[in-house]
Amino acid sequence: MKAWAVIMAGGSGTRFWPESRKHRAKQFLSIFGRKSLIEQTFSRIKKVIPPSRILVFTSLEKAASTAKLLRIPRSQVIGEPVGRNTAPCAAWAAALILKKDPSAVLGIFPADHFIKDEAVFAKALRVAYAQADREGMPVTLGIKPDQAHTGYGYLEMGAKKVSVRKTPVFFLKGFHEKPGLALARSYVRSGKFLWNAGIFIWRADCLLETTRRQLPAVFQAVVKIAGGGISAAAVKKLFSKVPSISIDYGLMEKLTGGILTLPVAMGWNDVGSWATLKSLLPVDRNGNFSAGNNILVESSGNIVKGSGRLIATVGLKDHVVVDTGDAVLVCPVSATESIRKIVSELQKKNMRRFL
Amino acid sequence: MKAWAVIMAGGSGTRFWPESRKHRAKQFLSIFGRKSLIEQTFSRIKKVIPPSRILVFTSLEKAASTAKLLRIPRSQVIGEPVGRNTAPCAAWAAALILKKDPSAVLGIFPADHFIKDEAVFAKALRVAYAQADREGMPVTLGIKPDQAHTGYGYLEMGAKKVSVRKTPVFFLKGFHEKPGLALARSYVRSGKFLWNAGIFIWRADCLLETTRRQLPAVFQAVVKIAGGGISAAAVKKLFSKVPSISIDYGLMEKLTGGILTLPVAMGWNDVGSWATLKSLLPVDRNGNFSAGNNILVESSGNIVKGSGRLIATVGLKDHVVVDTGDAVLVCPVSATESIRKIVSELQKKNMRRFL
Repeated sequence: MKAWAVIMAGGSGTRFWPESRKHRAKQFLSIFGRKSLIEQTFSRIKKVIPPSRILVFTSLEKAASTAKLLRIPRSQVIGEPVGRNTAPCAAWAAALILKKDPSAVLGIFPADHFIKDEAVFAKALRVAYAQADREGMPVTLGIKPDQAHTGYGYLEMGAKKVSVRKTPVFFLKGFHEKPGLALARSYVRSGKFLWNAGIFIWRADCLLETTRRQLPAVFQAVVKIAGGGISAAAVKKLFSKVPSISIDYGLMEKLTGGILTLPVAMGWNDVGSWATLKSLLPVDRNGNFSAGNNILVESSGNIVKGSGRLIATVGLKDHVVVDTGDAVLVCPVSATESIRKIVSELQKKNMRRFL
Repeated sequence: MKAWAVIMAGGSGTRFWPESRKHRAKQFLSIFGRKSLIEQTFSRIKKVIPPSRILVFTSLEKAASTAKLLRIPRSQVIGEPVGRNTAPCAAWAAALILKKDPSAVLGIFPADHFIKDEAVFAKALRVAYAQADREGMPVTLGIKPDQAHTGYGYLEMGAKKVSVRKTPVFFLKGFHEKPGLALARSYVRSGKFLWNAGIFIWRADCLLETTRRQLPAVFQAVVKIAGGGISAAAVKKLFSKVPSISIDYGLMEKLTGGILTLPVAMGWNDVGSWATLKSLLPVDRNGNFSAGNNILVESSGNIVKGSGRLIATVGLKDHVVVDTGDAVLVCPVSATESIRKIVSELQKKNMRRFL
């Protein structure tokens, strides 16, 4: 078998507005003042999979710039004409890769997560690819939870299947949606639940066969598209018609042959909001992250990010202030999950230049 | 007698930073989206005193622009080479006016306060000028308090002296500094205390004679300056040497001949901070004042003032956000009294263009 990777970079990133915009989604931002999340993701995977076997799926408009950013051939970046969630995208990738490599094992990775311990990630990945190849079952990486987070889906572990180089692999007992706080606490207490990080490793043929059985409309469309020889307009027409559905829901939940899960503690963070990002940023002794020309007086626990202009605060506690030159965001850290409501307002008012 | 007025417009206005700056003090701002406070003050007084008998004292740098703004001759605007609080300024005004009008009665008015009921103000003023002329005593306008405010000085009323056209005039028993909350409450409960709004009416000759007795250095300087025929440099040298002291402290507190006070309820507001200003601004049904290109989602009790750029908030409660193009201020409404600390920081860091 050969290991392949697909990076899914189609996210639109309203949650980091005004830093993220329609054509400047989260995965492309250098929020840390270092490399963008997609560059970090690519370089992390590259340590396990040769770059020529890494495909990137993103929106059609971003395909060229993504290839340029990652310094890979344009042919390795697939531009989706419309976003249809992860299952159609994974099936498309499987159909494409199977043409070149019938024995391919495919890893699917979100482009916009942060992983601190890359060695742990690499080791888990090698075990996961080997298991996926041998068993024909999908393998999910599950994050060992360090808090009762209500913002993530959970994976419930069943019986232990095997240990490979001291890495235990479990049967997956079930997917669970984002829980309430009490339920999240009981999950974490039990020790049998992991966070679903959206990382799956699966044999390409099994993935496509499952698509054929469970999402026949998706199967037909992606096989036609991957077959080549049709116009961009025809691709758009075909792909627009497939249902928008996730891998978890569309392909895995009804899977009878079994799923494996591999618990990892690799300093994972989904960078889902300014509040989440905060734990990754360097802060001063008052707990402020400050980037730019800022004066923070008697202020603590804030994220203040400027773009040249002076930002001054006094007595400000636990807020996010982001100035991108054309727009200023101010909200409590606790409200950053609601930033999409601002984006909705902008859409309603047709204020396109801010989207 | 002839009634004269002096508008004191020397304030530096750090409390409304970044809207107010060293050369753009509070009294010159159009914070209401209407006329500036100094224009409002001038037009309010003009209804009682002819414009040709209204002098304006401000800093030397602002004198020309002030004359232009108020459309009065440059000779009616006196530029102070340095700020020396209100007593030296009042004595200078008295010395100048006495040269033209030995029987002048002089009203002294801060330039940067808001008064809602101008008719009440005008009526009180006429009584005050007449009393000041007849008795030779200074008359202060005292604001009937509607809350136990700890940010103002208080005037304690003594016995009633007279009622003129249903307007009672009292002897002043004493000046009291800004009280603590408990003391402020007892002041207001007693019904015998008024807010000191810094408005005084006094015969020019009595004012200058009191200066001669109590602040002889000030007297000598202002008589020499008002005498004319000396250079701007000499004026600066003379005025720089006088002590910086207020009318209340320097001239009135030790006055043995008596002071009168006239209680008024005229919708007075000292516009001392963004928090104070808030009560004067039109707000939406969520209690937000919003000026500019703003989107406020699930936000309440805020002052949001932009200057073209988009400001977006979500879940923001009781904060001030002011964007002046070169600088952005964010603070809780309750912290606006501390904005001067930001200005101090800017001074320390020598960031002059923001001062």
